[in-house]
Amino acid sequence: MSGSNAKTAAGNYFEDFRLDQEITHATPRTVTEGDASLYLALYGSRFVVNCAEPFARSMGYAKTPVDDLLAFHIVFGKTVPDVSLNAVANLGYAECRFLAPVYAGDTLSTASRVIGLKENSNGKTGTVYVRSTGINQRGETVIDYVRWVMVRKGNTDAVTPEPVVPELSDRVAPEDFALPAGLDASGFDATMSGSAHLWDDFSVGERIDHVDGMTIEEAEHMTATRLYQNTARVHFNQFSEKDGRFGRRIIYGGHIISLARAISFNGLANAFAITAINGGRHVAPCFAGDTVFAWSEVLETADTANPGIGALRLRTIATKDRSCADYPGPIDPGYDDGVILDLDYWVLMPKR
Amino acid sequence: MSGSNAKTAAGNYFEDFRLDQEITHATPRTVTEGDASLYLALYGSRFVVNCAEPFARSMGYAKTPVDDLLAFHIVFGKTVPDVSLNAVANLGYAECRFLAPVYAGDTLSTASRVIGLKENSNGKTGTVYVRSTGINQRGETVIDYVRWVMVRKGNTDAVTPEPVVPELSDRVAPEDFALPAGLDASGFDATMSGSAHLWDDFSVGERIDHVDGMTIEEAEHMTATRLYQNTARVHFNQFSEKDGRFGRRIIYGGHIISLARAISFNGLANAFAITAINGGRHVAPCFAGDTVFAWSEVLETADTANPGIGALRLRTIATKDRSCADYPGPIDPGYDDGVILDLDYWVLMPKR
Amino acid sequence: MSGSNAKTAAGNYFEDFRLDQEITHATPRTVTEGDASLYLALYGSRFVVNCAEPFARSMGYAKTPVDDLLAFHIVFGKTVPDVSLNAVANLGYAECRFLAPVYAGDTLSTASRVIGLKENSNGKTGTVYVRSTGINQRGETVIDYVRWVMVRKGNTDAVTPEPVVPELSDRVAPEDFALPAGLDASGFDATMSGSAHLWDDFSVGERIDHVDGMTIEEAEHMTATRLYQNTARVHFNQFSEKDGRFGRRIIYGGHIISLARAISFNGLANAFAITAINGGRHVAPCFAGDTVFAWSEVLETADTANPGIGALRLRTIATKDRSCADYPGPIDPGYDDGVILDLDYWVLMPKR
Repeated sequence: MSGSNAKTAAGNYFEDFRLDQEITHATPRTVTEGDASLYLALYGSRFVVNCAEPFARSMGYAKTPVDDLLAFHIVFGKTVPDVSLNAVANLGYAECRFLAPVYAGDTLSTASRVIGLKENSNGKTGTVYVRSTGINQRGETVIDYVRWVMVRKGNTDAVTPEPVVPELSDRVAPEDFALPAGLDASGFDATMSGSAHLWDDFSVGERIDHVDGMTIEEAEHMTATRLYQNTARVHFNQFSEKDGRFGRRIIYGGHIISLARAISFNGLANAFAITAINGGRHVAPCFAGDTVFAWSEVLETADTANPGIGALRLRTIATKDRSCADYPGPIDPGYDDGVILDLDYWVLMPKR
Repeated sequence: MSGSNAKTAAGNYFEDFRLDQEITHATPRTVTEGDASLYLALYGSRFVVNCAEPFARSMGYAKTPVDDLLAFHIVFGKTVPDVSLNAVANLGYAECRFLAPVYAGDTLSTASRVIGLKENSNGKTGTVYVRSTGINQRGETVIDYVRWVMVRKGNTDAVTPEPVVPELSDRVAPEDFALPAGLDASGFDATMSGSAHLWDDFSVGERIDHVDGMTIEEAEHMTATRLYQNTARVHFNQFSEKDGRFGRRIIYGGHIISLARAISFNGLANAFAITAINGGRHVAPCFAGDTVFAWSEVLETADTANPGIGALRLRTIATKDRSCADYPGPIDPGYDDGVILDLDYWVLMPKR
Repeated sequence: MSGSNAKTAAGNYFEDFRLDQEITHATPRTVTEGDASLYLALYGSRFVVNCAEPFARSMGYAKTPVDDLLAFHIVFGKTVPDVSLNAVANLGYAECRFLAPVYAGDTLSTASRVIGLKENSNGKTGTVYVRSTGINQRGETVIDYVRWVMVRKGNTDAVTPEPVVPELSDRVAPEDFALPAGLDASGFDATMSGSAHLWDDFSVGERIDHVDGMTIEEAEHMTATRLYQNTARVHFNQFSEKDGRFGRRIIYGGHIISLARAISFNGLANAFAITAINGGRHVAPCFAGDTVFAWSEVLETADTANPGIGALRLRTIATKDRSCADYPGPIDPGYDDGVILDLDYWVLMPKR
């Protein structure tokens, strides 16, 4: 009898990636109402479009769309075994567009293309840029985004590829939004959505403290991350993490994004969908026992071609164990203590 | 740039309520099979009508009804942002009737009317009485109940309304039960339900120790409370609660009601539905790590017009970290140590 | 008023069982997509057949089958109140066959027959052997297995039955497999399943370290065990377990089987279904906070009559707080430190 790890996935190292390489990720996934319930129970989100089927239909959705971030995390999770199993850090996101609603019953799969590679000067790691697309069972792209991660080299003597760094937009331009045809908020019922503040009521520069705080438990972030079939080991294995960099399991950054979005309901209840993510930075790691708070600033407003729907570009900052009443954020250098997330994204909101 | 909390919901203070005020609560919610699965996994309930579709249909249900208390918590949760965000205490429930089964696919919304207001002599708080109704997508009332809460004044100088205290029944009378038309237990299979003890076998004054204990974890009660979209802050935010009255997150009282009901299966397996809640008192708070036990006493029996169905009025007492073998309950003054819940309600049970 | 426990289920003691006794267990259960989502979120399983409806249909399944072990745990859970509420130990499993796929919407019930009884020489306990069958709403048997448990005597003076120990097979023979008619893996897409290693690539004696570790939290194993409606008290009640044998809640052994199976995806991604369990032993108890690892050895290979489908007989060993890089397993006497599970089973895998 012989033992070997020939059949165990070791993930890709920096030198395993090639520019323009296409990766088809494993495990297509049929999203169900069960996933939507779990998502709601994990974050307490209350955006009406994701909760009430008659409301969603009245706006032109075929049925209740699942939370945009649930779809994002499922699409993202599939890339982990191929792209970031040997990652040192998730460095950033850009050009993320939500191109079609995802409904219970849809089956999502993900493919990625390597669009940039740049070895670090230490010769031990490099940055891999991938454009990933989530596709439904009809072949429609539902999500498209770029992320870049710092990946270890498996063999530090491996040949260095020519550095290629893709040009990425600072923001998704409103003309590139892809709202569902027929989406119409002209009859939007702001009593049912929980806030009288519509698109017209928000001004660039306005800041909103979302007030509420949510403490995270180990069972919660692990349950969420498994739901997304994200296999990154640092989230699950306390036996190895006790000797790791932090001595603890690190919470999946996307869990914090979802918490911040759910917390943002208090102040942004009418931000019924995310249509694009311009960029995001996980400023500091988060651990079980931490309490997450959030605040947002309106960066920009835009109109859309759909009846009754405007867009707000928001910057949402999340903190841990620190109230956001004083709007903590970037300072020079770095960030105020306690800041864990700096997210730049576009939401859709009904107009008057 | 300016910061303000003008868009954040602050909840209502005592002086914000007006007698006969109608409040339409936000976020209608389509109940799904995912919610039912989570409910089952959170409490371990085994009442057959909520578990087995063929069994439910054989009794005349259209399909598997969700647990009555899941429907109750969802209806209740919607009232929190408007009624009890600034509550000091949830004082009581009365006249709660379950008027129609709730099925996966139904969309619930909640409206409330202020039926009483009484400022406390300290001038800092007052009691608000509301009658809340849960309504489905066809406009049918599924749940109707009164609760009263002690709410802080935002401005202690605010004008005091004339005190009005509604007259509330001690109990829902059997003639006011609203069993579904066609509900028929004459063919009830007591092997499948898990107990041979039918309505005829219970006597007024009989006490049943439900024996089993269930320890509660933080992740569980928070997941449940988010599932109900109940936003009361004391349940979720350890960062602020560490400096609060108990130094801990307080478990939603409804979570204890659901646990007590699930535990009561052992002895009351044939109590297939709750048809009314006469009153309830959360005697003491409960925290993660506490182990909940329960016992019940039969207070009254009643017949119904539906074939093969009787009703039992029960008093269920729940305790924490204390067996119920000695039937702990009210003493003068107060309650035995460890008692956390005193609930008075009517269940339906098949007759011989 | 009188108190009694006449209506509370006390479970059966050794002397309550009779040879050839038939037990119909309570609470049939309609399996839903919500159960499948929870299962996925609790274990992070990624076997494509249980995740993607189009994939499952392409192989001849009617729709996405739920994980074989989810069905097993639901069928098993129903037996606990009647068979093992007074058990000292779950001693073993044998002859477990998966006879039909279980889909969301199916209603499972369980019946058992006592096939062996043997009192222990101490006169205080005895071994009860039962053959249990899980049956769907069409009366089709979906799972059939034997387990034996050591059960306390309620009355140590009770008459001793004649000892009968059933003859049980060491393994389910390939000719006794019951693959679904029409199941066909000839078009299996190994890119979508996550591994290029098919049946032909595995050799008897080959060992695979599944590498990944998963730490278990109290909220997780209790949520899972409640989902299965398994009522064994040692899993839930810290108030009594603090004075018990281990001072802690003991994790349901089936939770470890499910974790080991999910972890085995890394190396056995194409083992798309379990068709039989030959035997299993819970070598040591597991507690919250433990991190589970697993490795597998190929014991035997077999062909099947279905197009493109072979079978592998696997032995999967799970450990806690110990990597499986050195393949810890049985030693004489007993097992290496840290081993918690020794499972012998047959999986189905596509052939080239």
